[in-house]
Amino acid sequence: MAWLRTLARSSRSLLSSKPSPWSVSGFHSTATAAGGGGFFSGLGSTEAGKDKPRLVVLGTGWAGCRLMKGIDTKLYDVVCISPRNHMVFTPLLASTCVGTLEFRSVAEPVGRIQPSISSAPGSYFFLARCASIDPDSHTVHCETVTDGSVKDTLEPWKFKVSYDKLVIASGAEASTFGIRGVREHAIFLREVHHAQEIRRKLLLNLMLSDVPGISEEEKRRLLHCVVIGGGPTGVEFSGELSDFIIRDVHERYSHVKDYIHVTLIEANEILSSFDVRLRTYATKQLTKSGVRLVRGIVKDVQPEKIILNDGTEVPYGLLVWSTGVGPSPFISSLQFPKSPGGRIGVDEWLRIPSVQDVFAIGDCSGFLESTGRPVLPALAQVAERQGKYLAGLLNQVCRAGGGHANRAANLELGAPFVYRHLGSMATVGRYKALVDLRQSKEAKGLSLAGFISWFIWRSAYLTRVISWRNRFYVAINWATTFVFGRDISRI
Amino acid sequence: MAWLRTLARSSRSLLSSKPSPWSVSGFHSTATAAGGGGFFSGLGSTEAGKDKPRLVVLGTGWAGCRLMKGIDTKLYDVVCISPRNHMVFTPLLASTCVGTLEFRSVAEPVGRIQPSISSAPGSYFFLARCASIDPDSHTVHCETVTDGSVKDTLEPWKFKVSYDKLVIASGAEASTFGIRGVREHAIFLREVHHAQEIRRKLLLNLMLSDVPGISEEEKRRLLHCVVIGGGPTGVEFSGELSDFIIRDVHERYSHVKDYIHVTLIEANEILSSFDVRLRTYATKQLTKSGVRLVRGIVKDVQPEKIILNDGTEVPYGLLVWSTGVGPSPFISSLQFPKSPGGRIGVDEWLRIPSVQDVFAIGDCSGFLESTGRPVLPALAQVAERQGKYLAGLLNQVCRAGGGHANRAANLELGAPFVYRHLGSMATVGRYKALVDLRQSKEAKGLSLAGFISWFIWRSAYLTRVISWRNRFYVAINWATTFVFGRDISRI
Repeated sequence: MAWLRTLARSSRSLLSSKPSPWSVSGFHSTATAAGGGGFFSGLGSTEAGKDKPRLVVLGTGWAGCRLMKGIDTKLYDVVCISPRNHMVFTPLLASTCVGTLEFRSVAEPVGRIQPSISSAPGSYFFLARCASIDPDSHTVHCETVTDGSVKDTLEPWKFKVSYDKLVIASGAEASTFGIRGVREHAIFLREVHHAQEIRRKLLLNLMLSDVPGISEEEKRRLLHCVVIGGGPTGVEFSGELSDFIIRDVHERYSHVKDYIHVTLIEANEILSSFDVRLRTYATKQLTKSGVRLVRGIVKDVQPEKIILNDGTEVPYGLLVWSTGVGPSPFISSLQFPKSPGGRIGVDEWLRIPSVQDVFAIGDCSGFLESTGRPVLPALAQVAERQGKYLAGLLNQVCRAGGGHANRAANLELGAPFVYRHLGSMATVGRYKALVDLRQSKEAKGLSLAGFISWFIWRSAYLTRVISWRNRFYVAINWATTFVFGRDISRI
Repeated sequence: MAWLRTLARSSRSLLSSKPSPWSVSGFHSTATAAGGGGFFSGLGSTEAGKDKPRLVVLGTGWAGCRLMKGIDTKLYDVVCISPRNHMVFTPLLASTCVGTLEFRSVAEPVGRIQPSISSAPGSYFFLARCASIDPDSHTVHCETVTDGSVKDTLEPWKFKVSYDKLVIASGAEASTFGIRGVREHAIFLREVHHAQEIRRKLLLNLMLSDVPGISEEEKRRLLHCVVIGGGPTGVEFSGELSDFIIRDVHERYSHVKDYIHVTLIEANEILSSFDVRLRTYATKQLTKSGVRLVRGIVKDVQPEKIILNDGTEVPYGLLVWSTGVGPSPFISSLQFPKSPGGRIGVDEWLRIPSVQDVFAIGDCSGFLESTGRPVLPALAQVAERQGKYLAGLLNQVCRAGGGHANRAANLELGAPFVYRHLGSMATVGRYKALVDLRQSKEAKGLSLAGFISWFIWRSAYLTRVISWRNRFYVAINWATTFVFGRDISRI
């Protein structure tokens, strides 16, 4: 703090009549701050009887956030480690790309989901990536996240955190199936910054295609939006995009409105997890809105075109890639037994059986083959249910005296985790959606399509948005879009 | 379009029962599109009697946008050329950095200000930069804007646009006074992306400073926000920042709340254009909110510290630079006579007297010395008034038959532009603002400070926000911030 004192001495305050109250009180309060000016390389282990047990959560997706929301912070200190400080409400992410919703409306800061994290003395959020786990010493090794888009960012630094309980909820990664050029030229749709990139590129292409001197062919290429993958994300994004084209591009970019097209490429069937009747309905609706549905397999991705397996070349201006997820390098690097598909293997209580006090939930985990249960699909619904279940389990373990490290081995854990599918929803644009309430692909059950489904879709998501603030904003955004159209400023 | 036909042929549609309606109707409508597939290198000159005269506007700031809003598009085709497709409501930009307002609420797309631009056959918006002007042939030479942040952006391409009337409204540039390191390490506060960068950096530093292993001194550096320049922008940003610290950081980053400080460095007096009583009030309010006011001159800017003229070193985590504006390289490159200060010299009717049909308004223009008038300050107020005046003048010229190139030389132009200062406003945080209604620095007149002023400040800006959509959003943002606090998700 020497520099601050020098600054105070050598500079005359503008308010020369009396000294700045800040410069006096400020020094006193800061000199007594915790840590005493020394260095510390992490959070050491807790002491039973003196400290609360420490729960370390890796990740801020559906699983991790639902877990933190349910944890009783009178029992545990919660330390969350994640490269992003917010949860993304993924089902509404596609809507933000075209301006139906604001980016901020679908992002929920962790501190709003679990307020203790920003105020309780032993709870923290660290903007960092977990590099490795040492289950023997109950420690995770981390590295702060740097960000190339901000000026003068620091070199990442490393630190360790001891845990009493560890929950791995760091999610999965978009799969590229080893196809060349996907990471370089396609945009995924999993994070808010992906949606921002898609939006910037779409608006840029709309404006560039209007500039004089551009050929008809180039104009058509720039405005060709290609979506790879016919799962719910790909279908919803195609639907939103065609809504945007029908309602907003026709009015606000009328010079180029006849040049913009959407193509959805899928190797098998679109929405394969849905009822056959709903699939047919979706196909009809999308085609009606101008989305071109193509069955094909991508072989190669180049800067301005993709090559399909049959040799067809498809020029594109915007390429969105949403073909499902696979294990991330971090998950693959962990030395725990894996479930089919390379996820971290867990038992019926979501524990990693080979070690003490470590759990895994969400897209990064799957039941071990030995449990005789199938690996659950990578859905928000599964992740959320697991987070909720595990929060209850951990609260119960702590109340039974097993909160601290190595104290839970002999505890009775109660009912194992059982997943009951509540159904699937997807919107296909133009105030139409699908709702499939069957419990599995084979089961019989209710399925709906059309405006009523769309209304259910919107209402369901509105009630599931976590904070009242964002619930309010999502409703306001929808109303504004309805009245004024979508926003097209490219910022 | 050969590729689109190949794609249609070689790929089986998912809806195999009947052919996709899009693939049939789509081809017909696109094959008849304008341009006929040929190349054209720009917009040629208009023909009197056949075409409307073409008004080309360079820039989308206060001046250019107010002009386009006032132009009668039954008289003119409007072509706007600018590197951004929206106007920024600059007086509220400081509020977006800390989340009081959303970024989108202060950006107004040009197409919403002048709807003709996106729908009328001869009117366009081009996302491009003007490279040079040829007043003899009535042509501007342009280059499309590329953007490093988007994947696979095209090489810029060049085109020409002929004009009947040209309005240069491309604004000024932040001045660095030749101080080393300013562009590399400091962030300006003039565009939405600047506000986004400030926000990302502020939230990053708040989170990094909470990570274990960081020294007390480094923590203090990371959370030291330094603002250079005590004009309205610098003061308002400091006030917003201290509001954010008092209300939101204390609650949501309580681990680091004692480490964050704001220092405002100004070489002379803060808010020098305001009444002395208001200046004293501002100084007192800012100091009370914890903003440290320092008189000093910056000599050198380094990645983590600045050096003042007296040798003091000031470490910083965030450095915001707002010391006023000077002419941009484009304006300096133009061969027109200049006003004092290097701006484009104009006469009392805002014309560039040496050439036909070229006007300049806003921060890039100033009265020629020969007019005997002082150069007006670089204020939104001046730019807006000039835009409004010139729109009226151009409408009148066209009605009098002087719309096309070289037809207005002998027309009577009527009353010259006269600027009447309506007063200045600035907020200093904590529901306090200043309102100075004097017409000039020397004049006597009403000046107010306090809550009433703050209320006037908010109401005045709310009514000046251009579209109803954004007016609605600004009001909603303010209400939400009041109820829920500021948003802290770092997206």
